[in-house]
Amino acid sequence: MANKIKVGILGATGMVGQKYIQLLQNHPFFELTSLFASPKSAGKSYLEALNSRWQMTTPIPENLQNLIVKDVFDLQNLNLDLVFSCLDLDKNSILELEDRYAKAGVVVVSNNSANRSTGDVPMIIPEINHSHLDLIAIQKKQRGYKKGFIVVKPNCSIQSYLLPIFALINSGFEVQKILVTTMQAISGAGYPGVSGLDLIDNLIPFIAGEEEKTEQEPLKILGTIENEKLVLKSNLQISASCNRVPVIDGHSASVSLLFGEKKPTAEQILEIWQNFAGLPQELNLPLAPIQPIIYKTEENRPQPRKDRDLDKAMSVVVGRLRKCSVLDYKFTGLSHNTVRGAAGGGLLIAEMLFKLGYLKTSANQESN
Amino acid sequence: MANKIKVGILGATGMVGQKYIQLLQNHPFFELTSLFASPKSAGKSYLEALNSRWQMTTPIPENLQNLIVKDVFDLQNLNLDLVFSCLDLDKNSILELEDRYAKAGVVVVSNNSANRSTGDVPMIIPEINHSHLDLIAIQKKQRGYKKGFIVVKPNCSIQSYLLPIFALINSGFEVQKILVTTMQAISGAGYPGVSGLDLIDNLIPFIAGEEEKTEQEPLKILGTIENEKLVLKSNLQISASCNRVPVIDGHSASVSLLFGEKKPTAEQILEIWQNFAGLPQELNLPLAPIQPIIYKTEENRPQPRKDRDLDKAMSVVVGRLRKCSVLDYKFTGLSHNTVRGAAGGGLLIAEMLFKLGYLKTSANQESN
Amino acid sequence: MANKIKVGILGATGMVGQKYIQLLQNHPFFELTSLFASPKSAGKSYLEALNSRWQMTTPIPENLQNLIVKDVFDLQNLNLDLVFSCLDLDKNSILELEDRYAKAGVVVVSNNSANRSTGDVPMIIPEINHSHLDLIAIQKKQRGYKKGFIVVKPNCSIQSYLLPIFALINSGFEVQKILVTTMQAISGAGYPGVSGLDLIDNLIPFIAGEEEKTEQEPLKILGTIENEKLVLKSNLQISASCNRVPVIDGHSASVSLLFGEKKPTAEQILEIWQNFAGLPQELNLPLAPIQPIIYKTEENRPQPRKDRDLDKAMSVVVGRLRKCSVLDYKFTGLSHNTVRGAAGGGLLIAEMLFKLGYLKTSANQESN
Amino acid sequence: MANKIKVGILGATGMVGQKYIQLLQNHPFFELTSLFASPKSAGKSYLEALNSRWQMTTPIPENLQNLIVKDVFDLQNLNLDLVFSCLDLDKNSILELEDRYAKAGVVVVSNNSANRSTGDVPMIIPEINHSHLDLIAIQKKQRGYKKGFIVVKPNCSIQSYLLPIFALINSGFEVQKILVTTMQAISGAGYPGVSGLDLIDNLIPFIAGEEEKTEQEPLKILGTIENEKLVLKSNLQISASCNRVPVIDGHSASVSLLFGEKKPTAEQILEIWQNFAGLPQELNLPLAPIQPIIYKTEENRPQPRKDRDLDKAMSVVVGRLRKCSVLDYKFTGLSHNTVRGAAGGGLLIAEMLFKLGYLKTSANQESN
Repeated sequence: MANKIKVGILGATGMVGQKYIQLLQNHPFFELTSLFASPKSAGKSYLEALNSRWQMTTPIPENLQNLIVKDVFDLQNLNLDLVFSCLDLDKNSILELEDRYAKAGVVVVSNNSANRSTGDVPMIIPEINHSHLDLIAIQKKQRGYKKGFIVVKPNCSIQSYLLPIFALINSGFEVQKILVTTMQAISGAGYPGVSGLDLIDNLIPFIAGEEEKTEQEPLKILGTIENEKLVLKSNLQISASCNRVPVIDGHSASVSLLFGEKKPTAEQILEIWQNFAGLPQELNLPLAPIQPIIYKTEENRPQPRKDRDLDKAMSVVVGRLRKCSVLDYKFTGLSHNTVRGAAGGGLLIAEMLFKLGYLKTSANQESN
Repeated sequence: MANKIKVGILGATGMVGQKYIQLLQNHPFFELTSLFASPKSAGKSYLEALNSRWQMTTPIPENLQNLIVKDVFDLQNLNLDLVFSCLDLDKNSILELEDRYAKAGVVVVSNNSANRSTGDVPMIIPEINHSHLDLIAIQKKQRGYKKGFIVVKPNCSIQSYLLPIFALINSGFEVQKILVTTMQAISGAGYPGVSGLDLIDNLIPFIAGEEEKTEQEPLKILGTIENEKLVLKSNLQISASCNRVPVIDGHSASVSLLFGEKKPTAEQILEIWQNFAGLPQELNLPLAPIQPIIYKTEENRPQPRKDRDLDKAMSVVVGRLRKCSVLDYKFTGLSHNTVRGAAGGGLLIAEMLFKLGYLKTSANQESN
Repeated sequence: MANKIKVGILGATGMVGQKYIQLLQNHPFFELTSLFASPKSAGKSYLEALNSRWQMTTPIPENLQNLIVKDVFDLQNLNLDLVFSCLDLDKNSILELEDRYAKAGVVVVSNNSANRSTGDVPMIIPEINHSHLDLIAIQKKQRGYKKGFIVVKPNCSIQSYLLPIFALINSGFEVQKILVTTMQAISGAGYPGVSGLDLIDNLIPFIAGEEEKTEQEPLKILGTIENEKLVLKSNLQISASCNRVPVIDGHSASVSLLFGEKKPTAEQILEIWQNFAGLPQELNLPLAPIQPIIYKTEENRPQPRKDRDLDKAMSVVVGRLRKCSVLDYKFTGLSHNTVRGAAGGGLLIAEMLFKLGYLKTSANQESN
Repeated sequence: MANKIKVGILGATGMVGQKYIQLLQNHPFFELTSLFASPKSAGKSYLEALNSRWQMTTPIPENLQNLIVKDVFDLQNLNLDLVFSCLDLDKNSILELEDRYAKAGVVVVSNNSANRSTGDVPMIIPEINHSHLDLIAIQKKQRGYKKGFIVVKPNCSIQSYLLPIFALINSGFEVQKILVTTMQAISGAGYPGVSGLDLIDNLIPFIAGEEEKTEQEPLKILGTIENEKLVLKSNLQISASCNRVPVIDGHSASVSLLFGEKKPTAEQILEIWQNFAGLPQELNLPLAPIQPIIYKTEENRPQPRKDRDLDKAMSVVVGRLRKCSVLDYKFTGLSHNTVRGAAGGGLLIAEMLFKLGYLKTSANQESN
């Protein structure tokens, strides 16, 4: 235990915080030592602070039940190497708070959207753009951070289609237009979140802010660092329609693509997906799916309840690849929104940071 | 009653047949006198033939409960002017059977897909292409039908987007490309239809044959009659992704459109939809919605459970009109699949046929 | 219109208030002239005050959309004969407020639980205990009300079983014990109410306060007036387990009964239910179901979605009568919780009050 | 591997068969070597025989995908020690088939109801009545079985309440009457099973044959062996109402109990449940839950989606213990119907048989 990275969770009583707790149990790299929440929860035991809001289907780890929750705004005596940030606060408060933690020498892996468009904050999908971690040095220099820095993960809604599309781009097939209709699970809205009266015998064709994120975030993730700046990908248009459907976990997407002049055959696409692997697979990270993109050959798959949990719920599951008569190809994508799309995605970033040497235990540093 | 058109239902025990029964109660033009089903149901009372499969939320009309069900293959002593055909049979059997009824002097309004691609059979959405009824004379001549003929209604999946798009085309704005993702209700699959295990906490990204119908049928409906032949609309590409979602009634669609050179403003689109009316409205048909296209201004509408029943469940409800960054505009459409998209759509055709003089009571004819 | 009773709704933006609005459209006795809500809604148009919370599946009546909502605490210039009270306030505030309206000369028909255990306030199911309306004179005398008074309707959870049981008691078969497990719809919890995360692939075996109401309220309804006081029914024990299930509307109940020494046969029970009618049926009230108790003979009925709307959603639908090996008989009951169990039940009381002469228009009174 | 018990599954393509496959992966005692299904599946690979009906959320084990499915009626060359029997056949066929397998020297652990009322076949819940395994010797003698014999597990509907009640009986508190209302998950009906049209915004107050099983099977499980015969428990009346609710997995039950003269306090009940352990716990069987009865103190638990998976989905989860005003106490019980209530319950029996020496590998026997 002595050499494990000490981690905390900012927003530990929310759904994403709970999922982090679940995923961090017995983690080989990380030791969860601090739970942070709003001032009104601070000072209570975690069990008390939860107030019956635990939504995971495994029990609350016994060692955490009586852990005293800390005030997220109080950065005294942190004794932490890294925090996972998943806060229910307004944008400005989050910007300020994540900066304070970084200043205090803590690495911030953030699930919040506040810093996603910040120029010197890399937004990472580990299999796609680990090269953007080069922004960390720039960020530290610009902001005067010593040990800490901020990294964000993108929105859950893009996970089900961006990785399969990146795999094609990465194989030399430029993608120019993406038209995507998402059918998103309700766990993304937290608890209590969406009313049951909106979900039984119903769906909602709107999720506030979601279409903007779905259209803009990929341009940063697929961007390049030029002259110490991240330049957004150009020549790619994305149009998204985001729907909320009565599914607990797992965002589905009907996706259409237009390639540039060089167009792959369907066989090539399937082969690229089948063989795709990224840095998390090379590094053999604990939460990395063995096969990041799983193609289901049955004509009626992927389905959320049946496919979302494949490979630790970290694989993107695709199916139904076929010609599109308006663009070039269409397919259905699925990813688990609270694992791959939230806490799992954040944890995978942290695992990569660890393996690449971006994280050091306080103990190690102290000994230096 | 004496002057009402005598109608029957082919396939009276199925879901669409049940919906016809519900809609035909106390109808001002039509009198339901015969119920047809498979040979194994024939000879039983309708109540007995149903065998507890009644799915409507209003009771079985008392006068029908003890009506003896007829064998759909036995055309002796029909004494009928019109039949609504909604059969659970293979394509060839339906083609043969609908032809036999037409030959027997009965007008066939069909919900089946068998005759939808038949050249001399008009496929009608009353607000769009009543001019295609001119095919009836051609059909009668070609096939030697005297009094009978066949008209079909199109698939339920296109109802939620084709009427709003037609309204725009009709106002002079050519549409070149349509990319549509449907989220379809389960009542379309009949009873028992889709398994509960596929619908709780789940959706299915596939409906057999549905994408093909969704892409092809509009080309016929928007076609023109030239030299006594129906010519499919050219210069229009449609790409559809059809999903089954846990909703009882009401097909939703996320739709993107590309116009030709002349592009409307959003205000123009809303005005066109607001003011749209077709022949059913002019003729004041009993089942015609007063406003065929209802635009909801709330950002999270239309929703199936809350909006599907507007105006006798015959209106198409749209919302969320906005720019599309890949094509030109996008919006969400909704229509009630078993009313507007099935029995109601068929009945509206029959009402129009009656008002336009295509239907005559046997009594009238006999007296001629 | 001139002679209609002028009515208002206290709590017009909530779910029950909305259902009253829906039911009061074109009512032969009542004219809805005032909508009351919290001070923060007061002064806004009803449409604005709703803020997209309209949950009915029929549109907001056009004449009400721009009606200015009044502050429920401001009783100046009421110009009203009756109010339906369905407030989201604490018990004491409701007690005070209903008293103020009654003092102001307005008849209060209340859906709130605050006054249900008040000794001089009758709690009415019109088919059961209209004789309790005799408490009104006592109430007026005790409280010094002139024209106004307060009547309450009981909780939605008892509707699905109390009427069928009363019918048996009323036919001479004493009932001593009732053990009931309810499976209650979510509309009873209002909007947003129950979280979708608690309802998809789930149920909740608890509803706050519901078991107490289910066990106690019937004792008052079945009580008798002795010496100007309502005496609770003795010798009846009720035990309730209340569950929330993923159903929009319609409370179901599995019910077991123990009779006294005189026990009916199953045939007698069915005959009693079949022939049961109460004062609302005699008076032919507009919202009275023709048959208050409908017995479904199919072994798998009643079902909420399929049976809740029978006879204006005002009938109690029962089925599965059979022997109970612990008590005497068991059966399944169903009633529509927001119609029969809430607004419809309240409106039926008001209709009965009108027909029995308890309500007079201000116009009439002024002319006196 | 050499010393593992060789097991097969009769009915391997059904839901219960699939669950057995999932649970048997890497089992320390058992090696799954044979999959049996109907003659029309025989000769196909398991993948082919499944025909896309795999309903588990983990993948089909790779080593089984190409295993050739055997004809369940062909008992040539079995080379098996034990079969789990979960067949979709009529009662007589099952009786005959299970007898044939036993005669062929194979131990049959059956999930079917066919043999549950057979006098010499023990019906086992391992924590309750392992002493009934003494019937095996009697059965073998009576039927002339050499190595084989038949053991059955009871119906899924009784799992959520019988174990907690047995714990009380076992502690000296006689139970005389049980009134139970179940709310059962749909996975119990197999695939496709219950129609989605019966499950969205609905429930069904009936499951064929389920109330009879729920009322009768406990009398055998709680019975005693006297003079080589199993005598049903007397002085216990059970009354059940069984409902189907829109839940994937997990049967809930609202239960009321009447004790004999000696009545426990609530504290005693909680303590008995807390401390209960049976033979599976003593033997430390692989699938035995550490705590067979888990009491949830939150007032709104147990809930199916949130609690069914506790301790390998093998614990019975109870909550809401409180006084019953008709009988003595009431509570809510929950158990996972396809694990504890089906394949898991069967596998636990097999594990117990193995540990108690009832099962021997063919290899061992051959060497004797």
